[in-house]
Amino acid sequence: MNLTNIRDIFRNKEEYYDQKITIGGWVRSNRNLKNFGFIVLNDGTFFEPIQVVYGNGIENYEEVEKVNVGAALVVTGVLVPTPEAKQPFELQAETIEIEGASTPDYPLQKKRHTMEYLRTISHLRPRTNTFEAVFRVRSLCAYAIHKFFQERGFVYVHTPLITGSDAEGAGEMFQVTTLDLNDVPKTEDGKVDYSKDFFSKPANLTVSGQLNGETYAMAFKNIYTFGPTFRAEDSNTTRHAAEFWMIEPEIAFADLEDDMILAESMLKYVINYVLENAPEEMQFFNKFIDKGLLERLNNVVSNDFARVTYTEAVEILKKHNDKFEYKVEWGCDLQTEHERFLTEQIYKRPVFVTDYPKDIKAFYMKLNDDNKTVAAVDCLVPGIGEIIGGSQREDDYDKLITRMKELGLNEETYKFYLDLRKYGTARHAGFGLGFERCVMYLTGMGNIRDVIPFPRTVNNCEL
Amino acid sequence: MNLTNIRDIFRNKEEYYDQKITIGGWVRSNRNLKNFGFIVLNDGTFFEPIQVVYGNGIENYEEVEKVNVGAALVVTGVLVPTPEAKQPFELQAETIEIEGASTPDYPLQKKRHTMEYLRTISHLRPRTNTFEAVFRVRSLCAYAIHKFFQERGFVYVHTPLITGSDAEGAGEMFQVTTLDLNDVPKTEDGKVDYSKDFFSKPANLTVSGQLNGETYAMAFKNIYTFGPTFRAEDSNTTRHAAEFWMIEPEIAFADLEDDMILAESMLKYVINYVLENAPEEMQFFNKFIDKGLLERLNNVVSNDFARVTYTEAVEILKKHNDKFEYKVEWGCDLQTEHERFLTEQIYKRPVFVTDYPKDIKAFYMKLNDDNKTVAAVDCLVPGIGEIIGGSQREDDYDKLITRMKELGLNEETYKFYLDLRKYGTARHAGFGLGFERCVMYLTGMGNIRDVIPFPRTVNNCEL
Repeated sequence: MNLTNIRDIFRNKEEYYDQKITIGGWVRSNRNLKNFGFIVLNDGTFFEPIQVVYGNGIENYEEVEKVNVGAALVVTGVLVPTPEAKQPFELQAETIEIEGASTPDYPLQKKRHTMEYLRTISHLRPRTNTFEAVFRVRSLCAYAIHKFFQERGFVYVHTPLITGSDAEGAGEMFQVTTLDLNDVPKTEDGKVDYSKDFFSKPANLTVSGQLNGETYAMAFKNIYTFGPTFRAEDSNTTRHAAEFWMIEPEIAFADLEDDMILAESMLKYVINYVLENAPEEMQFFNKFIDKGLLERLNNVVSNDFARVTYTEAVEILKKHNDKFEYKVEWGCDLQTEHERFLTEQIYKRPVFVTDYPKDIKAFYMKLNDDNKTVAAVDCLVPGIGEIIGGSQREDDYDKLITRMKELGLNEETYKFYLDLRKYGTARHAGFGLGFERCVMYLTGMGNIRDVIPFPRTVNNCEL
Repeated sequence: MNLTNIRDIFRNKEEYYDQKITIGGWVRSNRNLKNFGFIVLNDGTFFEPIQVVYGNGIENYEEVEKVNVGAALVVTGVLVPTPEAKQPFELQAETIEIEGASTPDYPLQKKRHTMEYLRTISHLRPRTNTFEAVFRVRSLCAYAIHKFFQERGFVYVHTPLITGSDAEGAGEMFQVTTLDLNDVPKTEDGKVDYSKDFFSKPANLTVSGQLNGETYAMAFKNIYTFGPTFRAEDSNTTRHAAEFWMIEPEIAFADLEDDMILAESMLKYVINYVLENAPEEMQFFNKFIDKGLLERLNNVVSNDFARVTYTEAVEILKKHNDKFEYKVEWGCDLQTEHERFLTEQIYKRPVFVTDYPKDIKAFYMKLNDDNKTVAAVDCLVPGIGEIIGGSQREDDYDKLITRMKELGLNEETYKFYLDLRKYGTARHAGFGLGFERCVMYLTGMGNIRDVIPFPRTVNNCEL
């Protein structure tokens, strides 16, 4: 069908004035007076809908008069500027074809619905203003990330979702199997007979593509992953989902400083891209979802991020221990309350906290010369807390294996990872950005369930 | 570190001539004569490596002389044009820092390795020419797909990986669980007690995001998905993997014709993008992997795709039944041998086959007026066979529910899907492109295991 997108009409309106055009979309409202009526039609290509005016001259006037909210229409008419009205133009209908009717009990009537209610109709909620805006921004944000890395020559790597590397954090992993759970095959000694499973061994859903990503960074120098990750955490919060997307760049011949420069440029790039490409949506969020949003984001793109070491940060925070539920002392992991205090109260902008105690960080992080801290970095942003976590990786074979032994990790499992330190090791670093957290940050939405099309959380796996 | 990428040097060589630069990369070969030597260094940013010349004037000459293949070096020197030599320039080293040594038993010596051997070292194979080329093209191909859809205003939707919609094809699905397989909790009547599982019900890995995608197309008009899909098929072929990526666009107010136009423009766009952005890699494939590749791809981008109905195609194929293992007759599903015959022998270019018998196609495809066929389309390409499968969707509530009943599908499970036909249904269509098949098509690689960084197949889930 040869339809004009409402986005094109808004963006190039002069070209369309007094032209006959055809659009297709869904009715947001239908209001009629005696001999004419107004339909507000949205086609999903643009945040603003278009106003269609129809008179009793059209063939099926009596049918159109009764059209319910939610119906799909194909409208042909002339676009006319309306300088005296609120909207810039209207479409004066010549024909209105009812592509698909709706019913008076359409679940999205023209009124405010609660987020909780809308979560129960995840297949219809993108038809509301809020979710249309959220999911367009999510799409633009994803593209901005690809664009950023591709323009810099990074290679996009699809790391595997199903992983056979066992143990380590298995408690929070989903198991993947083709065994019949009603009748699990057992070996003679009564254990699960994994030789009968699809991969002939236990398999899980990945919690991170980083280790695989590192192998590609040691070939392509600069790579990034962007894919789903899974966490079987039994926590029912506004910030956790069982299935979410992560971006994990990895850069070789690079240290923690390079890593921070990359993270800062990426965040600024993504914010700028969304501000430029979704101005209507961002105005909407600023007005209805989070009043300080635009000021905060503009502040982020126009200032350098602050830098502080973990040790310095602890000193600062300890002075405010009376304000915290969890008191801060050296060696403790920073909680969201501490992170937000640092970025919101102390620095009033994003801040990189570096060089954490090795005992609260992962085995693969590069040990600093003090033997106590590692070259880790968290990026904290106002309103959220940690949005990015990264590190320089331990590239020294001996140090890595010492640390693995301390933690009781199985060398055989990590043979491939150790190989990278054996054959042409190079300093390298990377970070992980939780994509949903990034979308929440950009939109001001407060619940992760509202930035994922079909969220998966404990006890919830609908559609 | 302030390093220059080898890609920049090749692409803007004039700017770098007689300049002092620093590069980092991995040794492909090290050949030395008495007082000087040549190192071929690749940094993964460009298909071609750079030649480094070093003389015994450098500080650590004796060490550098002995550097093994695979070592990581940081080289500072002056770039000098070499008009008389095979390579356009060389880097005359002033300092060579050994970032990370390698060993004489480095698994990738400068010789030909079999694909089978390289599959056993999936963490190192991207350091070879073939896999460097494959995985850069894979990355560019992914980006081209995003670029194509985003430039046209399509919204990128992340459909869920873990799905609770049961039954239908469950035999080929992976189950996702947090139950302990050694001790599966049972209800009183002896069945698995899913109330104890993470989602309180059985969950699987998705085989397609289409149905979810449709819900978003009915809000945004034009959407696409690009994410992993899973098939627990016990088939050990060169074309099947248990985990692969799919692209599934869905367009509203659109029919099968619009669908074919979209598929054809997308394929041409992606091919053109890769030809333009990876000319060296494509020359390599054409020379060493698949001699007819470039001719075939150029042929595709410069010709219209052919069109034929299934019924016509069957008539054509029946005349050649002597050539086929499986004889063709109306009603049968086309096999790869038939598909390839059509596209390679009959049309000698890509061909869309439309309007298949309803009995061999999915329940959601739009029934044609003949009541026998559905508005389905497969796109067949030379060298591969089917690369895209799509259809116009049944948008009529009554017809859809009739078909679902015929096939014994559970209405309750598909309530959300039926809702789309109840509230503002609109004609719509979409297709699925198997991403790996697309990469195989673009590179000429013959085995799906060689276009996936860490492939998952029956009995194989390494790293």
